[in-house]
Amino acid sequence: MTLPTHLQNIHLPLGDQRTGRFYGQDILSVAQFDRADLEYIFGVAEAMRTMVAHIGTFDLLKGKILANLFYEPSTRTSSSFLAAMERLGGSVIPINEVRYSSVSKGESLPDTVRTLECYADVIVLRHPETGSAAIAAAAARKPIINAGDGIGEHPTQALLDLFTIREELGRIDGLTVTLLGDLKYGRTVHSLAKLLALFNVKVNYVSPEILKMPAALVAQLREKGLTQAEFKALDPVLAETDVLYVTRVQKERFENLDEYEQVKNAYVITPATLRPAKPKLALMHPLPRVGEIAPEVDDDPRAAYFRQMEYGLYVRMALLAMVLGKA
Amino acid sequence: MTLPTHLQNIHLPLGDQRTGRFYGQDILSVAQFDRADLEYIFGVAEAMRTMVAHIGTFDLLKGKILANLFYEPSTRTSSSFLAAMERLGGSVIPINEVRYSSVSKGESLPDTVRTLECYADVIVLRHPETGSAAIAAAAARKPIINAGDGIGEHPTQALLDLFTIREELGRIDGLTVTLLGDLKYGRTVHSLAKLLALFNVKVNYVSPEILKMPAALVAQLREKGLTQAEFKALDPVLAETDVLYVTRVQKERFENLDEYEQVKNAYVITPATLRPAKPKLALMHPLPRVGEIAPEVDDDPRAAYFRQMEYGLYVRMALLAMVLGKA
Amino acid sequence: MTLPTHLQNIHLPLGDQRTGRFYGQDILSVAQFDRADLEYIFGVAEAMRTMVAHIGTFDLLKGKILANLFYEPSTRTSSSFLAAMERLGGSVIPINEVRYSSVSKGESLPDTVRTLECYADVIVLRHPETGSAAIAAAAARKPIINAGDGIGEHPTQALLDLFTIREELGRIDGLTVTLLGDLKYGRTVHSLAKLLALFNVKVNYVSPEILKMPAALVAQLREKGLTQAEFKALDPVLAETDVLYVTRVQKERFENLDEYEQVKNAYVITPATLRPAKPKLALMHPLPRVGEIAPEVDDDPRAAYFRQMEYGLYVRMALLAMVLGKA
Repeated sequence: MTLPTHLQNIHLPLGDQRTGRFYGQDILSVAQFDRADLEYIFGVAEAMRTMVAHIGTFDLLKGKILANLFYEPSTRTSSSFLAAMERLGGSVIPINEVRYSSVSKGESLPDTVRTLECYADVIVLRHPETGSAAIAAAAARKPIINAGDGIGEHPTQALLDLFTIREELGRIDGLTVTLLGDLKYGRTVHSLAKLLALFNVKVNYVSPEILKMPAALVAQLREKGLTQAEFKALDPVLAETDVLYVTRVQKERFENLDEYEQVKNAYVITPATLRPAKPKLALMHPLPRVGEIAPEVDDDPRAAYFRQMEYGLYVRMALLAMVLGKA
Repeated sequence: MTLPTHLQNIHLPLGDQRTGRFYGQDILSVAQFDRADLEYIFGVAEAMRTMVAHIGTFDLLKGKILANLFYEPSTRTSSSFLAAMERLGGSVIPINEVRYSSVSKGESLPDTVRTLECYADVIVLRHPETGSAAIAAAAARKPIINAGDGIGEHPTQALLDLFTIREELGRIDGLTVTLLGDLKYGRTVHSLAKLLALFNVKVNYVSPEILKMPAALVAQLREKGLTQAEFKALDPVLAETDVLYVTRVQKERFENLDEYEQVKNAYVITPATLRPAKPKLALMHPLPRVGEIAPEVDDDPRAAYFRQMEYGLYVRMALLAMVLGKA
Repeated sequence: MTLPTHLQNIHLPLGDQRTGRFYGQDILSVAQFDRADLEYIFGVAEAMRTMVAHIGTFDLLKGKILANLFYEPSTRTSSSFLAAMERLGGSVIPINEVRYSSVSKGESLPDTVRTLECYADVIVLRHPETGSAAIAAAAARKPIINAGDGIGEHPTQALLDLFTIREELGRIDGLTVTLLGDLKYGRTVHSLAKLLALFNVKVNYVSPEILKMPAALVAQLREKGLTQAEFKALDPVLAETDVLYVTRVQKERFENLDEYEQVKNAYVITPATLRPAKPKLALMHPLPRVGEIAPEVDDDPRAAYFRQMEYGLYVRMALLAMVLGKA
């Protein structure tokens, strides 16, 4: 958020603003958070959870407007931000059809953002191009929250994943987290691993050879002191695992379909898979799932993936309240 | 709405809940209602009508969120539910673009519903497949309202049709109701006939031979004691008719276009058609109309089809309030 | 807004109505306004600006519902009306997908409007056909606001353009306004010129020969006493210009591409262009821009085009409040 000089004498249409941590800031990347930031965010999210449980909604952001600007469809993420804003008493301008709209008729992203901030107090942006959230933030006076920019970042997903671990298991330090499936292309697991590096955890990577965690990222995390180990199968690490984070192994990633046929079943979670696992395991998935976890697992108390969606609501409520100076 | 055991200790994000008739229940089919249910629903809808007339909107559902999940477009029905929720002070997550969204990328309906109920307090579902509302309800903790599932059910349409009769004519018992047009494929008239069978009414079916009411349904309704008679033309029954319910005769239904040409004009309502009708007739149509009723009829006080839309608002307000325990 | 006799005994779902200028009226064309109307509208818009600056939103239209009916996409205009309604505490039924919906399945515009007014208190209509707003208004009991009907009218754009001039320069009388670019096809500049004719201003038209202001319109405005002059280049008039209104010169308008190549750069505004201009110039553009104004100009205090978007919010808030009797 930068404020060009000629605009500094324009009244911002915000009510009784309060300053506070993250007030007026952009949420662009997991790299911007240190451990103290995360504790602060999770404390606010925890408060949101308690308030929702007791009174459903409240008027903390009454009078504030969110522009929910989605250049590519993501019902899950856009609904989550929309619900977060509505549960805080705010309003939403939903913009889901960018490809049809004048917005797409050659207008630059900075122009679109500078137009929308005339109407709204905060902008959530989903865009297919890496780095677009930073471009938007440089143009905007109002806070930008990155809801995914290509293969770049999806910081609110990583935050909700970490908050889920904290809520399900009561802590993050001291845990063993196993990331399973496609670790090469998954923006989700990369961002989560970066946040985990801020804590005292052990991380196992379980994937087919061709879908391994990128070596450069592993090296970068090692420098930060993260304990990491790589495996081809889940068996050796399941018993010690506190958090099992499953992602989809997509057939399309394999040039050799024989190779896919060999590995595909090794990464599907069934009730049998979970038998040797800890009784307090948190089984997570960013959803949507398409076969990676059998529906029979849903009734297992360790299946945390739908609760994960709910924790996402609280994290997004916390972020909206924070950047609007109301946390 | 079923509540898996491992989820029962999760706080539901609902405020000061009250119990009450239909609280927490799903609205899936007209078959679930008995006459006492209908009287109760219509009493609440009547109260909604009075409140809207006097104060426009009120905050009965303030803090509640509706997920309006439409897998196929239906501007009329989705707008009606959206307005119903907003007139009660609640908020809406509109999901109208399922075909583009991650929701459609292979995710199962139960998973979609279980995700959305993390954000919302009630889900309205429109889906092209018969039985999908029941599948959604089995998966969901929160109430599901069926807004049409294929050729299956569209219970809120049938309820608003019956409420329209009650409001326009002051009663249902003792009336003669004539259903006109395509009685073979019309989900609307089938559901309405089922509800009428709970009352002491006479029902006339007027249709071309190839678009007759299905024999199995006629037999089923006869068993329930409904007085029914079938006709090819409107003339013989118009004079005795209290409610004339018009539906569209679609050219595409006819293999023999000569046959279509012969009958098409027999089912178009004009000012001349209505001359022999009762002065207190209620002329209804589920809309949209495309030629079945001439626009010149609109100014006739007996033309009830636009008021029918407004009654729909009150019925949907009543249902939302009821399933959320606030009626 | 006409009220058929048989509907006059129906309770309108509006709360504590107050009468007032424009209460219950349609906003269809710039031709409906005289100078006193404009002063009134701008007075209300000015009050909206002050209220937004100090308290962000307020509940003036709490309980009112706007149906935002867009038959063609216009993210900018629909977002602006949506934000205007939300900043006044009202709710919105957004209908952006008319081409997929039952609305488009042969239903007439009057039927669609008469259905939507069962749910909403005011309808904003964007439609590709000239005259459609008037057709909708003739059918509707509730106020219709024209948000653009084909090459016809877009009165709220013209109002916000004029309000921008008033806010940026403190007055309208006595100014020199230069309209630049495509003056032949631009609905925007035609409507603005019509409103300017109500004031004591001098208007310069600067355009390529083939994109000149239509002669018939120039003649019509001359009869109304507007001082007008035509130019091919900006140079001769820039120094005297108080308001420079830029529009896009589209390549597609030229049959002879050589001709386009000759003129295209003459109508692009850069920091160098503005050097001889007045220090209090208001540089305007209806947006989106695609090259007509270089991004380097954005930081010039004279660049008013993003503030123009914000003024649009206040004008639309004013119009909504006025037609709903709350101004």
